[in-house]
Amino acid sequence: MEKLEQLYEGKAKRVFKTSEPEKYWIEYKDDATAFNGEKKARIAGKGTLNNEISAIFLSLLREKGVDNHFIKKISATEQIVQQVKIIPIEVVVRNIAAGSLAKRLGWEEGKELPKMIVEFYYKNDELGDPMINNDHIDILELAAEQELVEIRKQALKINEILKEFLQNKNIILVDFKLEFGKTPAGTIILADEISPDTCRFWDADTMKKLDKDRFRRDLGSVEEAYQEILRRIGGSVNV
Amino acid sequence: MEKLEQLYEGKAKRVFKTSEPEKYWIEYKDDATAFNGEKKARIAGKGTLNNEISAIFLSLLREKGVDNHFIKKISATEQIVQQVKIIPIEVVVRNIAAGSLAKRLGWEEGKELPKMIVEFYYKNDELGDPMINNDHIDILELAAEQELVEIRKQALKINEILKEFLQNKNIILVDFKLEFGKTPAGTIILADEISPDTCRFWDADTMKKLDKDRFRRDLGSVEEAYQEILRRIGGSVNV
Repeated sequence: MEKLEQLYEGKAKRVFKTSEPEKYWIEYKDDATAFNGEKKARIAGKGTLNNEISAIFLSLLREKGVDNHFIKKISATEQIVQQVKIIPIEVVVRNIAAGSLAKRLGWEEGKELPKMIVEFYYKNDELGDPMINNDHIDILELAAEQELVEIRKQALKINEILKEFLQNKNIILVDFKLEFGKTPAGTIILADEISPDTCRFWDADTMKKLDKDRFRRDLGSVEEAYQEILRRIGGSVNV
Repeated sequence: MEKLEQLYEGKAKRVFKTSEPEKYWIEYKDDATAFNGEKKARIAGKGTLNNEISAIFLSLLREKGVDNHFIKKISATEQIVQQVKIIPIEVVVRNIAAGSLAKRLGWEEGKELPKMIVEFYYKNDELGDPMINNDHIDILELAAEQELVEIRKQALKINEILKEFLQNKNIILVDFKLEFGKTPAGTIILADEISPDTCRFWDADTMKKLDKDRFRRDLGSVEEAYQEILRRIGGSVNV
């Protein structure tokens, strides 16, 4: 398989076409951004770590019956995925109040939610990824109502699988962001990445943050936290 | 009926108990606030105008089959309403992009929406009335799912009635905010007010704003705009 022209460069990844029409080539970058790109840095080794972490999570989900775009890891920072058209909705799943939810509801960070909640954000950098509801999604024609039901169903299942898996590694899954895509056949599957860039992971004993909040909030030891996640979920940290 | 102790003072109204347990006494104030209370002023005559305008709209809705808390106007600035427990959700109904929706979606103000949309905001000054979705409403225990369905149904009907009524007065109903309450018997009915403080009204020919945006955006002639609305909907403007 050959890597062809770049299709898209995001904040943390580049996506390339390949010689096989149904496959994309993804390169994880060391770049980190926060607050809609206002804060930027390079975190040494992040691309390698997230490529490996995401490969582990997406493989686990596939094993457990959640189809997704991941095909295989091909180098320290690269993986091959199935071609999908990304639905421009950031699907945020939350188990514990943190970040913008804690602010929105005035709940203390760390408070356990009585049940899992799902939020939708419009994936649009120019607008700052605003929160949207089903009516906005309807008039923006981002997804059909039945597709939102399907996305929510998958999000619920993903949460159950990841929460249990991580609990066994002494990690609390606080919240996470998912993106879904449509295959050429029109099926909605999980896409993008699952990593400390897109999840909040807390150590279950110390509540220490092991995710991108260390970067957002200038807590230091960002790379070490990502390495710790990779180590606990069974990856090799010889990066 | 006697006016008893004050129950609540809002930005634009005071609510009092009365000697009849199922009735409240409402006093409309001249105070105007915007941007979550950051901008404040007194608009001469506003209390009188909104008391009359709201009485007309709420009477019209009752006639058309939408039950609501309004009982009768008893003075220039006062009305008697049915006792309800306000559900702390601001229900925003939109026909045309304006204000925060235009910003949220990046749509030009004035663009007609392909269909009516409904947004929910958490009525909480301290938090700045944040937008919330059904999941937030669920965990905050603000309303049950079936109650949200009922609220949406009523909002749709209210929109149809007001839109048609105003169209005949050469006024475009751009968007509006509703509040609902629960009667002691547990029925959900429309409460609060319907006025230029809570709606966007545009003249259908000139697109001139005839609502609180004149205050929010320092467009001048605020009182005159409210008087114009009252005149067009058939009230007497000898205030």
